[in-house]
Amino acid sequence: MIKTISLKTSARTEMVDVTALVERELAGTGISEGRVILYVPHTTAAITINEGADPAVKADVLMMLNRIVPWEADYKHQEGNSPAHVKATLVGCSEAVLLSKGRLLLGTWQRIFFCEFDGPRNRQILLQVSSC
Amino acid sequence: MIKTISLKTSARTEMVDVTALVERELAGTGISEGRVILYVPHTTAAITINEGADPAVKADVLMMLNRIVPWEADYKHQEGNSPAHVKATLVGCSEAVLLSKGRLLLGTWQRIFFCEFDGPRNRQILLQVSSC
Amino acid sequence: MIKTISLKTSARTEMVDVTALVERELAGTGISEGRVILYVPHTTAAITINEGADPAVKADVLMMLNRIVPWEADYKHQEGNSPAHVKATLVGCSEAVLLSKGRLLLGTWQRIFFCEFDGPRNRQILLQVSSC
Repeated sequence: MIKTISLKTSARTEMVDVTALVERELAGTGISEGRVILYVPHTTAAITINEGADPAVKADVLMMLNRIVPWEADYKHQEGNSPAHVKATLVGCSEAVLLSKGRLLLGTWQRIFFCEFDGPRNRQILLQVSSC
Repeated sequence: MIKTISLKTSARTEMVDVTALVERELAGTGISEGRVILYVPHTTAAITINEGADPAVKADVLMMLNRIVPWEADYKHQEGNSPAHVKATLVGCSEAVLLSKGRLLLGTWQRIFFCEFDGPRNRQILLQVSSC
Repeated sequence: MIKTISLKTSARTEMVDVTALVERELAGTGISEGRVILYVPHTTAAITINEGADPAVKADVLMMLNRIVPWEADYKHQEGNSPAHVKATLVGCSEAVLLSKGRLLLGTWQRIFFCEFDGPRNRQILLQVSSC
């Protein structure tokens, strides 16, 4: 029961709210109790759950990540995207969300975000729903 | 099999050892082999596993997180708690712990901590125990 | 179905590609569809998934982690390894990888790394394969 969500990012660093895309895949599974594992098969992207109501939050998260992991430093990797790899490790490529009565048990303010750290690119999220 | 742990934090940033609370919920499930997913349904809190023997460790983790994500910066979000949102993304809102013979397979020094980044508040941890 | 991978690290901070070790354990389980939970039972180590093709990437990740969490700061913990504990919380001690047709669903460039932050030491990774 593994599904793939495809998305196209539009900036070098970006947080894309994918909650509705995840919910759409869930609806097709018929599973109402269990959990969802979200997995990003990329090394310069990640997945996180954070506030979606005010877009300033994701702007602040991206701004601070850029400050914590600056684009210019003594990097050895020649592709110029080492900061994106570091951010991928800090934020992480998998996330678990619980499922009850067919709905994701997200908190009131929580939304699921795909984090692009080296875009724009075509990207994927793998999603596994399990019932036990 | 989703349980809810409620707790009340007492400081703006704080790491609360919730291992005993998690173990108490486990005992009621009758499941002895499998895993536990811990999920924090908040956007200014997180969950982590780290050393619990010396309280200086959690003090150092909180101190360093405050240094990495300073309270004052060029944040756009008007609520003044953007650093808490950034820390939530860095630390993460879910954690998996394995279960065998009815016990959490924590390492010798590991304890489970609820991370409060914008307290004090009433908070929750969702817990799902699965057997396969 | 919990397996243990043992490894010996050889530096104070180091990322060890353990993908082949994980795949070897998988082969013995007979499970071809499901997921793997990887869990590090240590408080000064972690697990991450990142690029393995160019060794400069892991060098850059380690370099930047050392810069984000400096060895010298106003730490209270007397053992001198507080930075390792902070990194463990930032990177995280568990990771989920999906499994299909007996293979890990890693992205093209993804490899699984054990992160040593206070070595060299003898270390372990717990691995649970589940089929549903």
